[in-house]
Amino acid sequence: MSETKEFFSEVSRLVEAHLDWLIPAEGPGPSSLRNAMRWSLFAGGKHFRPALVIAVGRTFGAADDLLVRTAAAVEMIHTYSLIHDDLPSMDDDDLRRGRETCHKRFGEATAILAGDALQVLSFQAIAEDELLDVETRISLISGLSRAATKMVVGQQLDLEAEGQVISTKGVEDIHVNKTGALIAFSATAGAVIARTSRTSLTKIDDFAARLGLLFQVTDDLLDVTQTTEKLGKTAGKDIAAGKATYPMSLGIDGAREFAGAVYDDAVAILKEIDADTDLLAGIARFLLTRES
Amino acid sequence: MSETKEFFSEVSRLVEAHLDWLIPAEGPGPSSLRNAMRWSLFAGGKHFRPALVIAVGRTFGAADDLLVRTAAAVEMIHTYSLIHDDLPSMDDDDLRRGRETCHKRFGEATAILAGDALQVLSFQAIAEDELLDVETRISLISGLSRAATKMVVGQQLDLEAEGQVISTKGVEDIHVNKTGALIAFSATAGAVIARTSRTSLTKIDDFAARLGLLFQVTDDLLDVTQTTEKLGKTAGKDIAAGKATYPMSLGIDGAREFAGAVYDDAVAILKEIDADTDLLAGIARFLLTRES
Repeated sequence: MSETKEFFSEVSRLVEAHLDWLIPAEGPGPSSLRNAMRWSLFAGGKHFRPALVIAVGRTFGAADDLLVRTAAAVEMIHTYSLIHDDLPSMDDDDLRRGRETCHKRFGEATAILAGDALQVLSFQAIAEDELLDVETRISLISGLSRAATKMVVGQQLDLEAEGQVISTKGVEDIHVNKTGALIAFSATAGAVIARTSRTSLTKIDDFAARLGLLFQVTDDLLDVTQTTEKLGKTAGKDIAAGKATYPMSLGIDGAREFAGAVYDDAVAILKEIDADTDLLAGIARFLLTRES
Repeated sequence: MSETKEFFSEVSRLVEAHLDWLIPAEGPGPSSLRNAMRWSLFAGGKHFRPALVIAVGRTFGAADDLLVRTAAAVEMIHTYSLIHDDLPSMDDDDLRRGRETCHKRFGEATAILAGDALQVLSFQAIAEDELLDVETRISLISGLSRAATKMVVGQQLDLEAEGQVISTKGVEDIHVNKTGALIAFSATAGAVIARTSRTSLTKIDDFAARLGLLFQVTDDLLDVTQTTEKLGKTAGKDIAAGKATYPMSLGIDGAREFAGAVYDDAVAILKEIDADTDLLAGIARFLLTRES
């Protein structure tokens, strides 16, 4: 197993254990709601965003126990957005992370409420993380709330763009909001918790922007080159929905070349950072070469 | 106009002006989302919860500018819960605050997203309220997130109870979560911002619990005694949905008597507080005698 794959497995174990502690299988309140949240949380996601929190944090010397709560919070808010995006009135999807979507399994009302609860629990988790000082918590909550607002904006733009001809700028606008914002926050959060210097923070923000773009280009490529089975979610959806994607405007080979160039950019930025950034370079490489 | 009515008008002006500043009519992002949020926010709600923040805060000497942001945040999170509760897969309601519900006007997807955005913006609003120190902000965010989780739990319990025979304890459990938690938080928030003594805080919590109960009993009574026009929301829904309510178990006169007893309790608690609590007594009186 490569070092990066090893790292992702380690993050999955850490984050899932913490999520299991935050939202245990047994507890007060209606079990349906709890089961619906856990159904979507523990579906074998890649944990890319929590991995970014932990990788950036470790890069600048933060201990895991300072990072894991925020990593879990980011996964909760990501999962809430998947649950709501999959709803019949939104993208109307039946399959996610290789299993039925939350509303297929638990009904629409419970799925909406499970998403609502996961969003609020992510803020509670950070607000009550007593290992972090209150200034850090407020800074993280402010950043996460801004990212979460952008995710909603991106989803609304995405819905409105369906079947429309939109400009490349329009497509970027959707991605920067819908997926880029939370990826950027995840990287920044690791740096904030590690109390990185202003200079390094700027570099990390630049790196995260490239990573968000790389994530989107490879996501678009996977949608047209992989099977539903391999992805664990419906393949070919972008074309079916008439969405403007990178392979559509650049061709498949062109999009692959573009991904390579974005990766090179990302790695070049890392070289300017005064720390061992091998882990972060590995994550960029993972995105470039991922098959699901 | 009575002093209490005057106070409510003043709160509405204050809070609506602040909400208009937080979520202005013109701004970046898709206008549909903005319009949907504003449609539900500026629908002439009673602003009972923000009034409670401000009334308790003033009672213990806090200036309005320290209170108004949290008051607005409470109104945002209340409005998000109304938007989601009204959805077709939930209570499926067409009328709210005297006008079309958000999803009737803007479609289901945009209504879900407008609710999602209002929830996150309420946390952002408090996190970025620079007039409050960071300890206070964290304490408020923690309390608000716990109340918001209870609201989701209450709505899930409510949905599951439809058409079922449930115990009085079961009915109370729904109310304490669905409406009581945010009412209790609103009162506590005013006291926290005013840095009230531990003793007074406990009294305010007791008072708020009575107020939440009084709110529910009178809400149940209005559902059976008032017209849809007067309420601005569909009347008679509880009976239609087979919900267990106070008038159902105590009769209308019995429920009125119970409301009177709860009011007396609330006012008795206020007498034990070392401050001028006339404003708070007025609010309890307003609940007892309200017609919508």
